[in-house]
Amino acid sequence: MNAGQSLRLLRERKPLIHQITNYVVMNETANATLALGALPVMAHAPEEVEEMVGYAGALVLNIGTLSSRWVNAMLAAGRAANERGVPVVLDPVGVGATSYRTETARRILAEVAVAVLRGNAGEIATLAGVAAQMRGVESIGADAEPGQIARAAARALGVVASVTGAVDHVSDGERVIAISNGHPLMASITGTGCMSSALTGCFVAVAESPFQGAVEALVSFGVAGEDAAARSRGPGSFHVELYDALAALDPDTLNGRALLS
Amino acid sequence: MNAGQSLRLLRERKPLIHQITNYVVMNETANATLALGALPVMAHAPEEVEEMVGYAGALVLNIGTLSSRWVNAMLAAGRAANERGVPVVLDPVGVGATSYRTETARRILAEVAVAVLRGNAGEIATLAGVAAQMRGVESIGADAEPGQIARAAARALGVVASVTGAVDHVSDGERVIAISNGHPLMASITGTGCMSSALTGCFVAVAESPFQGAVEALVSFGVAGEDAAARSRGPGSFHVELYDALAALDPDTLNGRALLS
Amino acid sequence: MNAGQSLRLLRERKPLIHQITNYVVMNETANATLALGALPVMAHAPEEVEEMVGYAGALVLNIGTLSSRWVNAMLAAGRAANERGVPVVLDPVGVGATSYRTETARRILAEVAVAVLRGNAGEIATLAGVAAQMRGVESIGADAEPGQIARAAARALGVVASVTGAVDHVSDGERVIAISNGHPLMASITGTGCMSSALTGCFVAVAESPFQGAVEALVSFGVAGEDAAARSRGPGSFHVELYDALAALDPDTLNGRALLS
Repeated sequence: MNAGQSLRLLRERKPLIHQITNYVVMNETANATLALGALPVMAHAPEEVEEMVGYAGALVLNIGTLSSRWVNAMLAAGRAANERGVPVVLDPVGVGATSYRTETARRILAEVAVAVLRGNAGEIATLAGVAAQMRGVESIGADAEPGQIARAAARALGVVASVTGAVDHVSDGERVIAISNGHPLMASITGTGCMSSALTGCFVAVAESPFQGAVEALVSFGVAGEDAAARSRGPGSFHVELYDALAALDPDTLNGRALLS
Repeated sequence: MNAGQSLRLLRERKPLIHQITNYVVMNETANATLALGALPVMAHAPEEVEEMVGYAGALVLNIGTLSSRWVNAMLAAGRAANERGVPVVLDPVGVGATSYRTETARRILAEVAVAVLRGNAGEIATLAGVAAQMRGVESIGADAEPGQIARAAARALGVVASVTGAVDHVSDGERVIAISNGHPLMASITGTGCMSSALTGCFVAVAESPFQGAVEALVSFGVAGEDAAARSRGPGSFHVELYDALAALDPDTLNGRALLS
Repeated sequence: MNAGQSLRLLRERKPLIHQITNYVVMNETANATLALGALPVMAHAPEEVEEMVGYAGALVLNIGTLSSRWVNAMLAAGRAANERGVPVVLDPVGVGATSYRTETARRILAEVAVAVLRGNAGEIATLAGVAAQMRGVESIGADAEPGQIARAAARALGVVASVTGAVDHVSDGERVIAISNGHPLMASITGTGCMSSALTGCFVAVAESPFQGAVEALVSFGVAGEDAAARSRGPGSFHVELYDALAALDPDTLNGRALLS
């Protein structure tokens, strides 16, 4: 885990992060990507996704407001990313809430080699075959502990599993790292989960491995959340401060602020 | 009218508010829903709307950036909501501006039992058959006074009609309640109308009746607007403060701040 | 160039600015339009674009998240705007990055009489046939100087070309005006390019000519950017301050703050 070095690399290289994501958070994930120091691009037309992903340092797929055309674009972009060695991050928003979401996420996982699967405990548990309960796109509970869910999903699906919550857990199937950075205000606005997936794409584009990148992204986002919360009075001001805090992240002090176990 | 009690219930129960709304305000209505204390979910695919609405405390339909596929999803979700007793709120954005919008809103009203119809005077007057003038999605004027429009629409359409403006008017066809809470800055940003519809969904999910819920939502939103305006220098800062103010609404003092007549 | 007078007219007449734009920035361009003093409307359904554009003072087309249906709507709206004498602004987001974007922008320019073409140097150079390099939707470099690109594009395409960057350049094929207003923070958030196109639509709706309107829009937006930057700590707070600054633009002092050459 060297979030400081990856952040420095990211701001030097400014990788293009191709995002096919949901309508609710597009502006938010684009601005989070820019604030961190990478370049976002949103493109979903079947006529261009394969060409666009060729320029990308990472591809982020997010099924938050899925429909059949967008799913087809995600599959085409994902296959093209695989051919070109571009790492793919999948955010299975709302899996477990409707069968369409569950089937779509399973289909993407079957047809595209996903480097990092980033979701809440309920979503990742559902995909790992562990019992869980969803309420809309929110995770209500799961039978297993989040670290176990992360490990089980990583093993079952052959991905790095990144399970976010009050404490985040990232696993490659062997190791499990718990990340305690962050702040409860991060759950008070929509799109922080989607932002963490976008930032995972940013870090995976420069990190030593998808596992390292997934951890570094959550450390960085968590630290930014802590800094933003210290200046906020509620969800509106927190939302604004979060971008300022991402842009102000200091590569020299970032590693020392990581709360890992 | 007991906005305080409904707000308390809403924060305890956290009802899921299923929203099929326009691209411009999705992030805004999701964040307003969260800030108040409920859970938003945006889902519009025909493959999942019927399943998703089954978990919802209310369904909010908004035709702000309508197209044929989205209208079909609204109709399917609306019918499923009716079957399951989930109250439906309709926001007929821009009705009267183009015949496509007017026909679509009439079609939804014909095929779905709508609990609350929330719009500006021009939109609701058009649907009630009262002469009105629209300019794009803004109401320019109507022949009748807003309270009369609300009552006429409620009677003609069998809904609770919620007509927002400088002073808001809610009617069930018999009673008309005028709500003077709010602030002119609420008209300075896009999406406050749509937010008021989303918050109407939140309150209708817990209130004694759709009529009570519609009034309570506008009181609460108006009070939040007053609090936000007191801390703002213009539309940008007002937009941010509005979410902080919604999250800070105090159930103990809310009823006492209602300006009703 | 009389940005002050146009701003005064715009706030009196409140022209409707019909925008068919991308998912990422819809909320942002609507709020920028409102903050300046005009009325935004977003409508993209083939059933209504021709009717809607009939009420508009300008039509803004933006291909940032294009797909075939949206392109068809843009063409239909553009042709209807031409028939009714409504000026059209085109923002060719990402032209040069994928062939689909380049072909689509060329097709719109061939089938619709565009008054102002607003883009970054790479996008406009590509359309003018000048060698340029794009990285996603960002301009990396071009062989020519931006003023030359603006003049070449204006001549080749029969438009007013508005090339934004650290210094902006607007040309009608004869004159080239360089505008040095603005602030580097404007490049730190997504959508400022798209906002400048929306504001170009606002000014073109009231200005003496598309050339004057294009210059006035960039002066006004640049001055607002300067004011916002003076109150900001990073991209999040800058984003918020930008709307406050647009709303606070003073017609009496605006011309005196223009940095033209």
